[in-house]
Amino acid sequence: MSQKLFDSSEQDTLAEIIAHRRDIRGNNFLSTPIEKEKLDKILNAASLAPSVGFSQPWEFVMVNDKATRTAIVDDHRLANSAAKEKFTRNEQSKYSELKLEGIIESPINIAVFYCPSNAPVLGQDSMPEMGEYSVVCAIQNMWLTARAMNIGLGWVSILNPETLKSLLNAPREHKLIGYLCIGYVKEFLAQPELEKLQWRDRKKLTIISEKY
Amino acid sequence: MSQKLFDSSEQDTLAEIIAHRRDIRGNNFLSTPIEKEKLDKILNAASLAPSVGFSQPWEFVMVNDKATRTAIVDDHRLANSAAKEKFTRNEQSKYSELKLEGIIESPINIAVFYCPSNAPVLGQDSMPEMGEYSVVCAIQNMWLTARAMNIGLGWVSILNPETLKSLLNAPREHKLIGYLCIGYVKEFLAQPELEKLQWRDRKKLTIISEKY
Repeated sequence: MSQKLFDSSEQDTLAEIIAHRRDIRGNNFLSTPIEKEKLDKILNAASLAPSVGFSQPWEFVMVNDKATRTAIVDDHRLANSAAKEKFTRNEQSKYSELKLEGIIESPINIAVFYCPSNAPVLGQDSMPEMGEYSVVCAIQNMWLTARAMNIGLGWVSILNPETLKSLLNAPREHKLIGYLCIGYVKEFLAQPELEKLQWRDRKKLTIISEKY
Repeated sequence: MSQKLFDSSEQDTLAEIIAHRRDIRGNNFLSTPIEKEKLDKILNAASLAPSVGFSQPWEFVMVNDKATRTAIVDDHRLANSAAKEKFTRNEQSKYSELKLEGIIESPINIAVFYCPSNAPVLGQDSMPEMGEYSVVCAIQNMWLTARAMNIGLGWVSILNPETLKSLLNAPREHKLIGYLCIGYVKEFLAQPELEKLQWRDRKKLTIISEKY
């Protein structure tokens, strides 16, 4: 397996998967169950993510139970009303029209946790966040792998992480990194939904040469 | 571009790119320059990463200058001696044999920063780290895109982020997320180097059903 070289058509495939990945919410999920084999591929891609000091500090909780998910949606609503208050009045009316999660509508939710190591981790000393960042790399691998299988994923961040940990009985030292909703979709939008709705514009990439 | 569907051979391509991605260090970089067109593709992949509230909170500093890189290597050495102290005596002797960065050996370094927004960001209220996590997703897109072009990337985390910010004149409110070394390689190892050297073992994935 060493020295595997990819060709330009394989490069184009990756570029297309990256370009067509979208954040999917409840207005767009189908309830069709995801085949176990496909879920396994998504989780396997997570396990191949880079991790600081090869620490692989991730754990995955598969959330199917309707009562648990209803409690999580309730928590989302609380967090969402608090979050909305921070925006201008004009933005708040736009905000209210957005569907920002698919906790109930998607067939499966996955809570992804960072589990700190008891022993020192190589590379995680002067930048202690590296453990969490490894888990984020795992989530991005999952997202792209799902998209390549024409499966949507939505990352819900409007939640109180401590409430969620308590609903899932997560150990105190674990940290919630992402709460993911996964399922087939009605469509993959041509643009990110927030771009399409002109919530925010696409920025020109800031590339600085040598120094700020 | 909506409704693009990928087929199983495209899914396999992504799975292979994910499986063959490695963290590259100075013992494995070639000094061959990276073509501008390829660097542009890597940066374009970053710009297509998911970002909380479509905030796109990333900035990229291209570091070529030898004097700057020498100062960064000096900072790495300081951080590395401090980090090494935390390990057991037995581990320290293994640690000393590891080459952990390719700052000088690689033809280009890219410092990736998170730039907080002045205004509220949709989805970044109860989980304020979401902005940083968006930048990590961008880095993972860069890493996979580089690998697909048979280009190596190494993420250096043994650095004092404040020293690095000062060397690059970064604004005070910016946060260093990743310092990346990019270049062609002698080889892509069959396994992660830390796995091959038996620094740490590969873990069985922890998948929990419903609740801990």
